[in-house]
Amino acid sequence: MTKMVLNAVGRAIPTHIKGMGDLTPFKGAFAHTPGPMNMTPRAAWHKPGQSKMTETIRQALENCGLADGMTLSFHHHFRNGDHLVNMVMDEVAAMGVRDITIAPSSLQSIHEKLIPHIRSGVITGIQTSGIRGEIARVLSTENLLKTPIIIRSHGGRPRAIESGDTKIDIAIIGAPAADAFGNVNGVEGPNACGSLGYAIADATCATHTVVVTDYLIPYPACPVSIPQTLVDYVVVAEGIGDPQGIVSGATRITRNPMELLIAEKANEAILASGLVQQDFSFQAGTGGSSLAVAHFLRQHMRENNIKGSFASGGINGYLVDMLEEGLFRTLMDVQCFDLKAIESIRKNPNHMEMSASYYANPHNKGCVAHQLDVMVLSATEIDVQFNVNVITGSNGIIMGASGGHCDTAAGSKLAIVVAPLFRGRLPIVVDQVTTVVTPGESIDVLVTEYGVAVNPARTDLKDRFRENGLKTVEIHELKERAEKVTGKPTKPVVTDEVIGLVEYRDGTIIDTIKKVVE
Amino acid sequence: MTKMVLNAVGRAIPTHIKGMGDLTPFKGAFAHTPGPMNMTPRAAWHKPGQSKMTETIRQALENCGLADGMTLSFHHHFRNGDHLVNMVMDEVAAMGVRDITIAPSSLQSIHEKLIPHIRSGVITGIQTSGIRGEIARVLSTENLLKTPIIIRSHGGRPRAIESGDTKIDIAIIGAPAADAFGNVNGVEGPNACGSLGYAIADATCATHTVVVTDYLIPYPACPVSIPQTLVDYVVVAEGIGDPQGIVSGATRITRNPMELLIAEKANEAILASGLVQQDFSFQAGTGGSSLAVAHFLRQHMRENNIKGSFASGGINGYLVDMLEEGLFRTLMDVQCFDLKAIESIRKNPNHMEMSASYYANPHNKGCVAHQLDVMVLSATEIDVQFNVNVITGSNGIIMGASGGHCDTAAGSKLAIVVAPLFRGRLPIVVDQVTTVVTPGESIDVLVTEYGVAVNPARTDLKDRFRENGLKTVEIHELKERAEKVTGKPTKPVVTDEVIGLVEYRDGTIIDTIKKVVE
Repeated sequence: MTKMVLNAVGRAIPTHIKGMGDLTPFKGAFAHTPGPMNMTPRAAWHKPGQSKMTETIRQALENCGLADGMTLSFHHHFRNGDHLVNMVMDEVAAMGVRDITIAPSSLQSIHEKLIPHIRSGVITGIQTSGIRGEIARVLSTENLLKTPIIIRSHGGRPRAIESGDTKIDIAIIGAPAADAFGNVNGVEGPNACGSLGYAIADATCATHTVVVTDYLIPYPACPVSIPQTLVDYVVVAEGIGDPQGIVSGATRITRNPMELLIAEKANEAILASGLVQQDFSFQAGTGGSSLAVAHFLRQHMRENNIKGSFASGGINGYLVDMLEEGLFRTLMDVQCFDLKAIESIRKNPNHMEMSASYYANPHNKGCVAHQLDVMVLSATEIDVQFNVNVITGSNGIIMGASGGHCDTAAGSKLAIVVAPLFRGRLPIVVDQVTTVVTPGESIDVLVTEYGVAVNPARTDLKDRFRENGLKTVEIHELKERAEKVTGKPTKPVVTDEVIGLVEYRDGTIIDTIKKVVE
Repeated sequence: MTKMVLNAVGRAIPTHIKGMGDLTPFKGAFAHTPGPMNMTPRAAWHKPGQSKMTETIRQALENCGLADGMTLSFHHHFRNGDHLVNMVMDEVAAMGVRDITIAPSSLQSIHEKLIPHIRSGVITGIQTSGIRGEIARVLSTENLLKTPIIIRSHGGRPRAIESGDTKIDIAIIGAPAADAFGNVNGVEGPNACGSLGYAIADATCATHTVVVTDYLIPYPACPVSIPQTLVDYVVVAEGIGDPQGIVSGATRITRNPMELLIAEKANEAILASGLVQQDFSFQAGTGGSSLAVAHFLRQHMRENNIKGSFASGGINGYLVDMLEEGLFRTLMDVQCFDLKAIESIRKNPNHMEMSASYYANPHNKGCVAHQLDVMVLSATEIDVQFNVNVITGSNGIIMGASGGHCDTAAGSKLAIVVAPLFRGRLPIVVDQVTTVVTPGESIDVLVTEYGVAVNPARTDLKDRFRENGLKTVEIHELKERAEKVTGKPTKPVVTDEVIGLVEYRDGTIIDTIKKVVE
């Protein structure tokens, strides 16, 4: 019988998992001291004249000594236009290799093509920020893997890689453009995706790094996002990405009146916090209200002649407009969300690429997330302890991604969640979230269409809001109001089987995900 | 009695040195397989709100836990305008700390102020690419250090650091511009030096990294050459550099008729090699004839409409002109030599900064030096085996720097040494060089004012030259011709005491430097 202990957010965490080893339960956002690093890159050796060009993905995998039990990493800048993970894993299966752990920075619904490889035992472990679509449903309702899925934040992933917790045998880099010697950038070619921020830790720390591109450019690539010094092999392959799926295009402001209302209230709260001053910094996550918050903030900045120091995270055209208007001095970009952002990072030196470690890793000497003033976050659920779930639906099934949620919440001076009280018949503000991704201690404010609730721990903020005439409510009131409409939410029916571990950014376990009985 | 063995260039190398451990004698340019890497960076941990600003250099050193026996690293982009090494070591001495190894990327004559710290036992070890001036003379003629000086090439230094052979306790980064969180660039401020290529391995691998700047800029610095993720402390201090000494300004073509003659002959040899084609790559070292070679090459490229892929190394205004004229597509820059180069790297995205590891480390997955077609090198001495000395004078006293000499010679398709037959009464072409820095196997051609000699191992090149009507002579003839004018050179008078080890780029020992009796 596995020993379980309650962690700092009250979740029962197994202290050991077979095939994985001992786990450290979450102790608090900054309570866990990192252990010694045990990442050691392979000694490399290059002789002049040695070519890195390889005919096929298979040949490259063979050159890397692909074998049962290895870990292969991928990055998700091609998003739902990514064909590379499927292509590579088809090849791995065809080679008769089994027991592979895949460590993509995220999985999309297009990766449902991996399901047969999971069922057949080619893939037996998954480490990712999120999973969507049918593959997420299958993994949530069947216990198919040898060890639980590890869900990591965008800062937690490079922490794991750079510390050696995750040892990558082969990093696969999907390269919009690359030269024959392995210099890569994301701003040229038919699959240009802009920033390659998530791929940098992989290339840096993997034993072997394989670049796969459909756009071979003359040596030397310029600019260089991933340098030749980290790359073993270069493969040219058609069809690695679909530009339609790479670009999300969602840079228009929502027209949903409730989302606009929430955004307006969020903007009022942000202004009442007093943080919007010269050189302030800002990030907004995805979701209907987030972009609208930027919209309202923009008006205020214009009217008051305020210029921010940086906006960060995934970057879209709206933020590019603000950069070009002079409302932010720089953009720090881990992932471009649309064509305008890609165009901007190609041309504008003040639009800077950042690695995921630079963005959010808590165990380097200081990440950008720790420099944030204002962070606007979404939530699938938020509970009366301010704990946030963005990974599972209230039915317990994985449907989202951890992303930079817990990283930016922990790092920013004001972490503000914008969410409606309920969606359809599901309450968003609940007694206990299904799965904790971000601990309540990191969330300062919840903004809903029915009012603004402040985390009781932030008495300073409550005082500030009162001084500035901003009315607040207790989060319990919001929860009760939601329940009046939707009724008490039903808990998902789960078994005892742990199919997923939600790792906090520091490597401790903040929650488990159990197998759902549909 | 220390055991000595003859290495692959016939030099007697001790197999063990007390306080240093076992040495591996040089086996050939690509004969030594690297061992496992043992560099493990310190686990770091940053909390939001933690400041890195530190009042004084002393406070920063104390925060880093400076103690007897540690290794401190520096970079030499401020060249002979560098006051930082002296300032820091004065502070170390004032703190009563002893037995420090300094690992600057190079030492200049301005660092003669370190001599008292060497005599008093504050500095007991030195690892550097070169040493010039009075400090070089003192170190060559007195056996003052606990262990011999280690001379490393620009590629060998990051190899040593990244592999863990050199463990840096505290890296000191002299920053032309930095923000309060440690993002550094070299293109702003009164001491702008352009590329910070030599400092990057230090910041990446050191246990602690301290940034010292006289030009604090708003967060975030843009561009960023050394990121906040690597930096522990930031100190603002006046007078760290002198712009007069930082910029060398030597970008005019020589008017010395003999140097021009040699350059013209070198250009003929380069063209006769057949390597000057579309997309060819080029580097020239420092020295009177090198820049003139670029000048002659430029005419040929214009007339034949040839566009090169890149020029690399230390970059000067002449190469910037060629970039802007479209004669090279990119510049890859480890160190800017003049204001024009600094201005160019600030503004022109095709003028790329490269780390020293990217430039020349033989033990990453492929450096730029290994992509070079044509490399023009200088020599203090070259012998009939084509071995080259650039570190000691023929009197045995250290007076130069290893630089990228052996890296680019080994990596390029055509490594061509340009040198006069003699300088004053000293022959340059000799029976045996005083100190081997670059093994003869890496040198393809010697061009002097009295003729062109081809390394007998390059029969292909000899044939090519003959086909293209380029006359050659035997290197022995050149040596004899030199000796007819100068007489047989006298050997320096040295003791048995080894005061320096010349490390080949791969970590093996290619030669020793013995104490000179003046």
